[in-house]
Amino acid sequence: MGDRTHAPWPPRDAQSVREEAEAHLRSFLAGQAQRPRGRDLAVPPALLRVLTDYLFPGGKRLRPLLCVTGWRAAGGRGHPHALTASAAALEMFHAFALLHDDVMDDSSLRRGRPSAHRVLAALHHGRPDADRLGVSGAILLGDLALAWSDCLLRTAGLTPAQLDAAGAVVDAMRVATVGGQYADLVAAGTGTTDEDLAMAIARNKTAKYTVEGPLHLGAALAGADTTLMQQLSVFALPLGEAFQLRNDLHGVFGEPGRPDKSVPDDLRDGKCTLLTGLALRRAAPDERDRLLHLLGDHDLDEAGAAEARRLLESTGARHLVEQRITVLRERARSAADHTAFHPATTAELRGWADHLAATPTHPRHCEADDQEPTP
Amino acid sequence: MGDRTHAPWPPRDAQSVREEAEAHLRSFLAGQAQRPRGRDLAVPPALLRVLTDYLFPGGKRLRPLLCVTGWRAAGGRGHPHALTASAAALEMFHAFALLHDDVMDDSSLRRGRPSAHRVLAALHHGRPDADRLGVSGAILLGDLALAWSDCLLRTAGLTPAQLDAAGAVVDAMRVATVGGQYADLVAAGTGTTDEDLAMAIARNKTAKYTVEGPLHLGAALAGADTTLMQQLSVFALPLGEAFQLRNDLHGVFGEPGRPDKSVPDDLRDGKCTLLTGLALRRAAPDERDRLLHLLGDHDLDEAGAAEARRLLESTGARHLVEQRITVLRERARSAADHTAFHPATTAELRGWADHLAATPTHPRHCEADDQEPTP
Repeated sequence: MGDRTHAPWPPRDAQSVREEAEAHLRSFLAGQAQRPRGRDLAVPPALLRVLTDYLFPGGKRLRPLLCVTGWRAAGGRGHPHALTASAAALEMFHAFALLHDDVMDDSSLRRGRPSAHRVLAALHHGRPDADRLGVSGAILLGDLALAWSDCLLRTAGLTPAQLDAAGAVVDAMRVATVGGQYADLVAAGTGTTDEDLAMAIARNKTAKYTVEGPLHLGAALAGADTTLMQQLSVFALPLGEAFQLRNDLHGVFGEPGRPDKSVPDDLRDGKCTLLTGLALRRAAPDERDRLLHLLGDHDLDEAGAAEARRLLESTGARHLVEQRITVLRERARSAADHTAFHPATTAELRGWADHLAATPTHPRHCEADDQEPTP
Repeated sequence: MGDRTHAPWPPRDAQSVREEAEAHLRSFLAGQAQRPRGRDLAVPPALLRVLTDYLFPGGKRLRPLLCVTGWRAAGGRGHPHALTASAAALEMFHAFALLHDDVMDDSSLRRGRPSAHRVLAALHHGRPDADRLGVSGAILLGDLALAWSDCLLRTAGLTPAQLDAAGAVVDAMRVATVGGQYADLVAAGTGTTDEDLAMAIARNKTAKYTVEGPLHLGAALAGADTTLMQQLSVFALPLGEAFQLRNDLHGVFGEPGRPDKSVPDDLRDGKCTLLTGLALRRAAPDERDRLLHLLGDHDLDEAGAAEARRLLESTGARHLVEQRITVLRERARSAADHTAFHPATTAELRGWADHLAATPTHPRHCEADDQEPTP
């Protein structure tokens, strides 16, 4: 059952997994930049540059690492090129998700730097349609990243059986991401207190492509059967939900010990999360009206954001979300412990449980790290 | 060299090709609607409904038909399921292109009906963010269509060799479409008279995924070698360019004999086409200034549109574009005649040349037919 007192994170070979996935991405992009073109248009260099910035912020490369964990969980040995290329496809998919997400949320920042549509708009500074051109460019770039994610997987050198299994994983992941994102947008601004909906959004929009999908992909490559896939889901889904709740808290409250004075996009957009749902349900009527007014106020200022934070805190919602994260993490740990995984896998999964539930994945306003799509 | 006096279009088995591709698409969508979901979100029914409307307007199914022509050109026999599924993937890709194109151009109509983002916005009528929700929904739906296009191809039952060859075709097609669309947007409103740029946009944005890609895909499935692929390109690219020029004319002037009194999106957006480039280059200085003013005027009214049409006509630009279409069609015909294709293929390609260069693909303001992305 593994070592329950010392759960290692990052996995011992994390650095080499990262480096190999990054090297593969760089070589893929270089190949695209040098496609023979004849009289054809090259891939627009501006788009390639912005995509490179999205792909190489440094970062933890959670998804490639989880893919390798899934591979090992299913008995995969060594680190074949097909695994690296599939892990790289996940990072490319992540870039797609971030690019379109930022457009839909009209987020001006991504990892503390201007988001893609802002960068692309700035390239056309002075044109009356610069902003629209930026948005359109970011949509196209996301399309390219989605197509290239598929291309990376298809050219990974998988056997037909691997490609079938990996394809099924990716199909499910893509549908969930789109469905979750749409539900997120439709719920925004409604002030819903439906907990099940909030958790379904967290699960579909983030948990599936961040935790379950990568584990499944690696496991699929190693020939996992349905039972193992389901066992990995029992671990991955609560953990992915905890990860999203952690990011929701972080998006609103910032770093622990470093109170955030900015105006979070999530508040401004009136995103319906477990946090806001619990607060609205527990607030006294006048507080509730006030919070409803603040959430989704596009002109929310710092004072308004501070007031919303106070209400999210005073209603006990923040505390309850922390508790829920603990419950979900325990559920994931328990799945790691009580499933007949190899002891090394159990230890690795426990490491993931502690890491993903505890750490906000990115400082919100500086160069950073990995990140879920709607911070 | 085939029958030069009677080039048949549509190909003799067109109706069954269409029906099989459509049946496959319908069954694919039904499968997606019924995915086992457990606690998961279903594919949003609103998105599925809008996608179905985009996929089933009737229509000529040019791309599936061209795919079958490519298959036969490379010696493919019969009509295997893998061919049908691959043809269906092309229609799904087309839906993706239309969906995102309408968002980027903010087109309110598609085939005479409200475009996807307008339909989705109307579903949320009364919400202050209804328009944004419509746009975001259409972006997500395009993402889904792109992912599903890939899924249709991957699950088509291709052999590994077929999948490799088909994948390379699709990769090239997707990059060209995105690059061409970006160049189109960047050129809009600049009043450029660069003919090479206008033709490169037409080629990349439309010709490749409408004519060359489908022919290549079918040929790839039948095991075509590089030589045949290149021969098909020599036919397909001028014809695809002619197709786009025909659509440019149609977009601005409407049906022959049925003068159009509306305000075309292409004029309002200041799209830089061969038509506008030639007109700007040939206009007297005062006409040129006037035309530059009219092109890209977002408030262009019917009188302004009529004036722009007169200038595009009086400068001789319309006539020159007609001439260019003829030259391109002859180039395609000549490629069909003077390449060592099977006589049946030559006849079929000549039929395509006449059809695509002659017919605007859709009445602009009524239920209709096939359509290129930016009418």
